[in-house]
Amino acid sequence: MPSEEDSISFEKSSMTLDSSEIETDNDSESDPNGTKDFIVTPWEVEGDIDYSKLIEKFGTRAIDDTLIEKIKNFTGEIHPFLKNRYFFSHRDLDVVLDEYRRGNKFYLYTGRGPSGLVHLGHLMPWLFTKYLQEKFNVDLIFQLTDDEKFLFNSNLDMETIQKYTYENILDIISIGFDPKRTKVIVDTKHIKYLYPLSIEIAKKITYSTAKAVFGFSNSSNIGMIGFPPVQGAPCFLPSIIENKPTPVLIPAFAIDQDPYWRVTRDVAEKLGYPKPAQIHSKFIPGLTSLGKNVILKARNCIIYCGRARDPRDKNQKYLLPGSTNSSPPTQIRWKCQYLSSILVSKLSLRYRKGISREV
Amino acid sequence: MPSEEDSISFEKSSMTLDSSEIETDNDSESDPNGTKDFIVTPWEVEGDIDYSKLIEKFGTRAIDDTLIEKIKNFTGEIHPFLKNRYFFSHRDLDVVLDEYRRGNKFYLYTGRGPSGLVHLGHLMPWLFTKYLQEKFNVDLIFQLTDDEKFLFNSNLDMETIQKYTYENILDIISIGFDPKRTKVIVDTKHIKYLYPLSIEIAKKITYSTAKAVFGFSNSSNIGMIGFPPVQGAPCFLPSIIENKPTPVLIPAFAIDQDPYWRVTRDVAEKLGYPKPAQIHSKFIPGLTSLGKNVILKARNCIIYCGRARDPRDKNQKYLLPGSTNSSPPTQIRWKCQYLSSILVSKLSLRYRKGISREV
Repeated sequence: MPSEEDSISFEKSSMTLDSSEIETDNDSESDPNGTKDFIVTPWEVEGDIDYSKLIEKFGTRAIDDTLIEKIKNFTGEIHPFLKNRYFFSHRDLDVVLDEYRRGNKFYLYTGRGPSGLVHLGHLMPWLFTKYLQEKFNVDLIFQLTDDEKFLFNSNLDMETIQKYTYENILDIISIGFDPKRTKVIVDTKHIKYLYPLSIEIAKKITYSTAKAVFGFSNSSNIGMIGFPPVQGAPCFLPSIIENKPTPVLIPAFAIDQDPYWRVTRDVAEKLGYPKPAQIHSKFIPGLTSLGKNVILKARNCIIYCGRARDPRDKNQKYLLPGSTNSSPPTQIRWKCQYLSSILVSKLSLRYRKGISREV
Repeated sequence: MPSEEDSISFEKSSMTLDSSEIETDNDSESDPNGTKDFIVTPWEVEGDIDYSKLIEKFGTRAIDDTLIEKIKNFTGEIHPFLKNRYFFSHRDLDVVLDEYRRGNKFYLYTGRGPSGLVHLGHLMPWLFTKYLQEKFNVDLIFQLTDDEKFLFNSNLDMETIQKYTYENILDIISIGFDPKRTKVIVDTKHIKYLYPLSIEIAKKITYSTAKAVFGFSNSSNIGMIGFPPVQGAPCFLPSIIENKPTPVLIPAFAIDQDPYWRVTRDVAEKLGYPKPAQIHSKFIPGLTSLGKNVILKARNCIIYCGRARDPRDKNQKYLLPGSTNSSPPTQIRWKCQYLSSILVSKLSLRYRKGISREV
């Protein structure tokens, strides 16, 4: 059985790592409007997040109006997730688009760590990935890191992970990705495609670097330490498949995962592969953490893709909207919050401007 | 191109690791007969080795007359490598034989790190492995750790390693293993069979343990740290293939590799697989190091399985017997040394007793 801690920490993106050197400045004073300090690492996200500061700290670039217009040139429209700035930051998205214009198609790459059921936090970036696949008519590699979930969770056995892998794949299929243009990779099943690349990457990362970026320690098992290159491999796999340098765009990770991709980008340069480009999403607030924008803890979220045979039905029930666990005003507030993330409606815009606080 | 240091250090067994906690006592005084202190680790073997002391230090057991008689019950004879005590130490060989008598067949497992050409140091244990396969009619897993050689040698590229892998497999075939009972595994090609087991093993080994046993440091690449479980996996693969706990006997590693198998045996217990049994061989002295029994350095050896297209023909030539590099008495002495390792002849027995020193 998976722990709740592991399986329902939805603000983390689907592939989670254990630690990071990156942390926001905890010494900064709370601002007059009552916003609090915030922390964003691959293993901890908490506080009222200032996304402009985050862009500065992570050294990424904002998805600004110019870039959105550039995307519109290809898509003919502006996706709601760009309009509402759910995707707010990027690395080399402009480079990938320029290459695309020159006829060098990119691959999309996203993934899922199958340690629990899929929920809204996963679906949103996948929906956007599907949209990009459709508009740009490009291939997608979808990686399920069952090995990672096994190695990083002492209380998860492979049998449980395999059940979730199966369930998650059903949900992934339901998104409607183009079957002819989508490769779903399960690490333990398809390792032969990843391993040769993975050791190329591994040879370029010292323990010293890995320790600094991912926070490994003496008590980390050696599988954890050896894992990151397996997640990096799909960034370069398209160049092997196409037998030419092929750009890769990773559109479906929250910004807390950036340290991971930064290492992969460094290695790309050393190995002569194109650096993977990324689009970063904001975090969706937890259902019961309205006082803060984000808190990465169990029980503060979420809307699951539940199934009748899900062993955790009980927990889901009290977390679902309209449950006795939240008062009516709270229910309205989370609806606004979610709407502001998912859609661009009049109501959600009002909420984003702070008007809904009056509800 | 491989470095000489890496590819011709023949006293090391075929799968080498980077370091070890185990080292002989350097403070001990030289004895009156002029023998020197000795060091035996997976990465350093030097000195006039006292094999009784080594058994004590490594906590293994001597292959004594009783055990040799026990083997003879199955084989009907005593192999020269047992008679001359080339194989001198073991772990659980008696247990494996007892299981065999009860009808529970063992698998043999050996391997090769394809970083150079095969030489006499490799052939001897493989010949013994072939003999055991023949006498006991058992399966053999032969692993080629191309990934290890790539990760542990900064100056070896995959293309070079693949060439050696091919060459080495030809030599392995020439040994005459039973084709129906032998599986040759090349890590990068057959990783899908090893990976699920490898992560099971990896989850049970902390960085702290790996650091102590193999000497990893901050400058080790994370592929090196993640590698040991890939070498451990074939110890448990027979239990997966046979779908029941299946003993494994590793007959073809010199004792310097023992720390590696000790870790695997610890993990076996935790995972519920039979502990792999081992037979340990002595080291063959280098051609140009007659003053010491063993020295693990390039240029001190060796008799290669050379091929016309071998890029290192030049080096081999001057290392081969009868070259101008050694004086006639030295030539006789190394012949005696090698004979004492390979055969049990009157001359070699005389040499082992020290009589040949008079030559």
